[in-house]
Amino acid sequence: MAVQREFSVAVIGATGVAGQQFVEALRGHPWFKITAVAASARSAGKSYADALREPNGASRWYCDSPPDENVLRLTVQDAADLDPESVDVIFTAIESDAARELEPRLALHRPVFSTASAFRYEPDVPIIVPGVNLEQLDIIASQRERRGWKGFVVPLPNCTTVGLVVTLKPLLTAFGIERVILTSMQGLSGAGRSPGVPAMDVLDNIIPFISGEEEKVEKETGKILGEIRDGAFVPHGALVRATCTRANVLEGHTEAVHVELAGDPSEGQVRTAFEEYGRDFCARGLPSAPERMIQLHDDPYRPQPRLDRDAGGGMTTSIGRIRLDEHGLRYILVSHNTKMGAAKGAVLAAEHMADLGTL
Amino acid sequence: MAVQREFSVAVIGATGVAGQQFVEALRGHPWFKITAVAASARSAGKSYADALREPNGASRWYCDSPPDENVLRLTVQDAADLDPESVDVIFTAIESDAARELEPRLALHRPVFSTASAFRYEPDVPIIVPGVNLEQLDIIASQRERRGWKGFVVPLPNCTTVGLVVTLKPLLTAFGIERVILTSMQGLSGAGRSPGVPAMDVLDNIIPFISGEEEKVEKETGKILGEIRDGAFVPHGALVRATCTRANVLEGHTEAVHVELAGDPSEGQVRTAFEEYGRDFCARGLPSAPERMIQLHDDPYRPQPRLDRDAGGGMTTSIGRIRLDEHGLRYILVSHNTKMGAAKGAVLAAEHMADLGTL
Amino acid sequence: MAVQREFSVAVIGATGVAGQQFVEALRGHPWFKITAVAASARSAGKSYADALREPNGASRWYCDSPPDENVLRLTVQDAADLDPESVDVIFTAIESDAARELEPRLALHRPVFSTASAFRYEPDVPIIVPGVNLEQLDIIASQRERRGWKGFVVPLPNCTTVGLVVTLKPLLTAFGIERVILTSMQGLSGAGRSPGVPAMDVLDNIIPFISGEEEKVEKETGKILGEIRDGAFVPHGALVRATCTRANVLEGHTEAVHVELAGDPSEGQVRTAFEEYGRDFCARGLPSAPERMIQLHDDPYRPQPRLDRDAGGGMTTSIGRIRLDEHGLRYILVSHNTKMGAAKGAVLAAEHMADLGTL
Amino acid sequence: MAVQREFSVAVIGATGVAGQQFVEALRGHPWFKITAVAASARSAGKSYADALREPNGASRWYCDSPPDENVLRLTVQDAADLDPESVDVIFTAIESDAARELEPRLALHRPVFSTASAFRYEPDVPIIVPGVNLEQLDIIASQRERRGWKGFVVPLPNCTTVGLVVTLKPLLTAFGIERVILTSMQGLSGAGRSPGVPAMDVLDNIIPFISGEEEKVEKETGKILGEIRDGAFVPHGALVRATCTRANVLEGHTEAVHVELAGDPSEGQVRTAFEEYGRDFCARGLPSAPERMIQLHDDPYRPQPRLDRDAGGGMTTSIGRIRLDEHGLRYILVSHNTKMGAAKGAVLAAEHMADLGTL
Repeated sequence: MAVQREFSVAVIGATGVAGQQFVEALRGHPWFKITAVAASARSAGKSYADALREPNGASRWYCDSPPDENVLRLTVQDAADLDPESVDVIFTAIESDAARELEPRLALHRPVFSTASAFRYEPDVPIIVPGVNLEQLDIIASQRERRGWKGFVVPLPNCTTVGLVVTLKPLLTAFGIERVILTSMQGLSGAGRSPGVPAMDVLDNIIPFISGEEEKVEKETGKILGEIRDGAFVPHGALVRATCTRANVLEGHTEAVHVELAGDPSEGQVRTAFEEYGRDFCARGLPSAPERMIQLHDDPYRPQPRLDRDAGGGMTTSIGRIRLDEHGLRYILVSHNTKMGAAKGAVLAAEHMADLGTL
Repeated sequence: MAVQREFSVAVIGATGVAGQQFVEALRGHPWFKITAVAASARSAGKSYADALREPNGASRWYCDSPPDENVLRLTVQDAADLDPESVDVIFTAIESDAARELEPRLALHRPVFSTASAFRYEPDVPIIVPGVNLEQLDIIASQRERRGWKGFVVPLPNCTTVGLVVTLKPLLTAFGIERVILTSMQGLSGAGRSPGVPAMDVLDNIIPFISGEEEKVEKETGKILGEIRDGAFVPHGALVRATCTRANVLEGHTEAVHVELAGDPSEGQVRTAFEEYGRDFCARGLPSAPERMIQLHDDPYRPQPRLDRDAGGGMTTSIGRIRLDEHGLRYILVSHNTKMGAAKGAVLAAEHMADLGTL
Repeated sequence: MAVQREFSVAVIGATGVAGQQFVEALRGHPWFKITAVAASARSAGKSYADALREPNGASRWYCDSPPDENVLRLTVQDAADLDPESVDVIFTAIESDAARELEPRLALHRPVFSTASAFRYEPDVPIIVPGVNLEQLDIIASQRERRGWKGFVVPLPNCTTVGLVVTLKPLLTAFGIERVILTSMQGLSGAGRSPGVPAMDVLDNIIPFISGEEEKVEKETGKILGEIRDGAFVPHGALVRATCTRANVLEGHTEAVHVELAGDPSEGQVRTAFEEYGRDFCARGLPSAPERMIQLHDDPYRPQPRLDRDAGGGMTTSIGRIRLDEHGLRYILVSHNTKMGAAKGAVLAAEHMADLGTL
Repeated sequence: MAVQREFSVAVIGATGVAGQQFVEALRGHPWFKITAVAASARSAGKSYADALREPNGASRWYCDSPPDENVLRLTVQDAADLDPESVDVIFTAIESDAARELEPRLALHRPVFSTASAFRYEPDVPIIVPGVNLEQLDIIASQRERRGWKGFVVPLPNCTTVGLVVTLKPLLTAFGIERVILTSMQGLSGAGRSPGVPAMDVLDNIIPFISGEEEKVEKETGKILGEIRDGAFVPHGALVRATCTRANVLEGHTEAVHVELAGDPSEGQVRTAFEEYGRDFCARGLPSAPERMIQLHDDPYRPQPRLDRDAGGGMTTSIGRIRLDEHGLRYILVSHNTKMGAAKGAVLAAEHMADLGTL
């Protein structure tokens, strides 16, 4: 390990569900230590513990395990006032409108890993999926130069994109991809909690629309699978068409994928491409990395979101129902939308950069 | 109306969930009067009312409205002993293995409308979807001749096929179809009740496999959209690929459909094709027919199975989320799997034949 | 019917879920015609149809059937500006804080039927459950005198109280009641929709607390079952203790009730008391009244909220699982929380007063 | 630790859901090693791994973690043929009818811990809840003598009884108990999986009846909290009345409890009684014991089954919503029905006996 030291870390938006997931992802982290939490002015000045408690004693903490004691004792700062130089690395979990204003101020001084879409489609900003396209981090040099930042902004993609590109990348590398038709059945946690999805809407139901989601999946997939040529992104040319729906599932996004490949592999070759994928990356042993990027299932009833979302600590993408014929390859994947697909994925990206000495 | 008289009707498998749906579909029916109910030997000899009641008083009736009083008073017959000549028309709701044995005995004398798959793939048997391919009933003449039957067997398709072909037929007629990629999110009631889908399996979950379902959808769609030439079925040549999943939805199948059209219509032309579809058929005013075959939604959050499954008494297919570009047409449909997709669809098919005087 | 004329009606809070339930309850009503709809300033000036539609085309209408065409065409008024004299009767579906300010202004001139708790606990205000305690409307005379109102405020109780008192009243009348221990498993719709109950909270879960609910049930039950003596309410002396929980059920409140009776009836006498209850009231044939106030079930698996909430158009309370021994009577009830338990119950109360000529 | 050696263990009914929970509870167990698995004749002769796999590759394993490798390799024996002397201890997870025949044959030679109700109500058989009434194991001497067994049968109670008695015992000890009124909202896993609860029945619903459950809770609670006098059980005299319902919750039983105490404690005394309960037992450090028997919650929205069922590895009972007045004490508990309430509870009972040297 080339990692030299501990990094002090700020989590912005720390009181919301998405921010809490960063606090959870960083619990007991060997390299990153949360030394600052920031949120809206309403929470500022309270201890993090108090900010997570309603006046009637109700908890507003929504992750499985309680936060580290030392994080509970931190005083929540107003995000607008946070001094970026007070920490080494910043993770943000805020709405895109807020991110558009806040993140440049932070990136002026420090690396910012963001789950917001605000900067995803800028020409000098990579959308990073750990283990998939970390080479696109090269664009950061021009981001810094162009914007005069000492830090940078690295957004993660939309949570639905993550599982898709993790499974497309090995196919692209081995066989080439021409066309992708996708239907997602997404878990509730991706919508946040307050308001999130009202129980009245989704009980005994499928909600056939998630505003803006399909466009994000289509656009981000092209960018992530694309190349940087002459300092500019050239999106991959495969057609991607997504239908995104919401199912009554707590967490975990299920995606039914139809891929038309450029090559003509056997099913065995497809399985091997999936199984071998990411072995080198996982072998680095980064703290948040799973043992394997992709888990293949032979049981035709798998993957299921309830059973498979937590595979590899929520960082492994599960694939099953592989069907291949001369017209294309079909499979179903399950990916954890708030772990690999959000906070913990961002932490893994930061770990990789730390490991490379580029953080 | 050319209909001359009342038809006496037998429901076979009347104590199971699928059979109960026939009893419900025929409640207060103006033309068809249930005069016989049959089930396995275990229920035979009891009144229908008693056969629907457990020893501890628990009801085994699973439809919304109670059966007609006169049906409750009928004595359940052993299906193996039912005299087909005691009624005019027979509706069967039994497992395929049982159907393979029983239905020929009944069809020897009487018309049999079946929800079983036993005879769907025979070359002289049409798979009927009312309003879509009733012209394929012409093949019955050769069915009778070849098999020496005075009656006939007309199976309905798999419930997932029904919504699909209702929405593909107007596209086929107007623009031609080359390729169909489909993901279904199916309701629970299609699996029956005992055992049906265990609640433990589907709570907070998507089940990514329904045994045999995808093959049925692919095969049946080709046959239903195909033609009869020289007395033989020529399946339509469009490629159909289905991924069938089970969602935690009581009733109603949701299907995300991607269609590649032969022609190059505008979105307005597609909408018109859907909206105009089946007007003549609905105008016949058959007792179980809806006002319209297809209901289009502009609200991007529709159709939803809970809100739209009962459109048109469960006989209208709802379509929304129409998206069209040069690569294809995408939409989402909701179809009621146990009404249009099963018993009530079979009753409507029988009504159509009665109306044509061919029953 | 002594009713002489149509009443023009205003619905306040008409764009929210609770107000929409008034619009639904009054659809095609033979006596009450909605001529005004009011909401917050944000919706004021739009047609009701437009106020129910999001910019992206999404509907904000959450009831089963669409509103009357003529209501859709009404212009939404700012509730703060509504002229009470422009209508004959007013139904309000607003938060208690807003009700406390607004309702007195309206009651100065017109009868106000309210689902808010703002005035429930005032000494000159009855909490009305149709068919149970309409004689308590006598207190209105002193309400008017004391407050100088030409109209009045009649609040309905909390939705959980409604099913309870409907089933306690016949027991009280026939046998006397000493103690009531109650556990509710409440449906989601009682919490409204936005924010309402987040799906993430209630999926695969029971929420063991509903803020303020238990106190309301305990207090309101005493008042409704009590008497007016010398112009003042004397609450009934029975001890009532409630535990209120939220279940993952769309609509319908299920309540497990343990009652200690003063008398010592047989089970047959208890059943008769339930079955005979409200016959006279129902025989009046009021438009929103059910055929029977209480439906008894012998099937031990009933009542169930999904199967029984809509009994009698949502106005009949279903009772089952009657168990009686020397220590008390136990039963389970299901009551529709947004029909009998809210808007439609308020409409029924108004109908009764209209029928008596006291509106 | 007085424990001298490893125990070899047989699990009977090992292929069913309840038996699998024993296999899970014993995974990597430091004292108990599964050396035999038995099931019906249908599975006999297959490896345990093969017996858990359907012909189409589908898994029939329903627990979270896969079984130990060495258990997967065991050959399933026909339970009817199992030689009890081939192991040291036997855990059974079979239907009561089968247990009534099989368990005496096994108990002739070996200790049998059973989740079946077959022997629960026998006068010489204790119903054991670890940490609550292990002193009742004294009756085993007379069981052995009377029946001529070298082993014994120790049944665990019904899963709903377990959480109840864990929380009643400290109240009984400290204050005395006179009356208990209970409503349960039970998870699905208690009903098993095949058939278990059909998803169609419980979606958007509460099922108000579980056959035989209430009688079991009432009877078992008295026996467990009672005493052995002169070699015979004297049930505790408190009145217990239960209403048992099924909710759409995967696992975890929620119980709303009303207790009338003999004494008149303060709320602080009640809380202390709960918090101090079982400290000595937990301090023994038995492998399956939790850190604490009871976890108190101040957050009024806790306990919730989804959040709290796994407290203490599923062995801690969570209590919240404590309300105390002169009429009684009310609280809500959550208890894991298949861990503390079944297999893992049985394992803990066996551990305690092993630790005492009485196994």
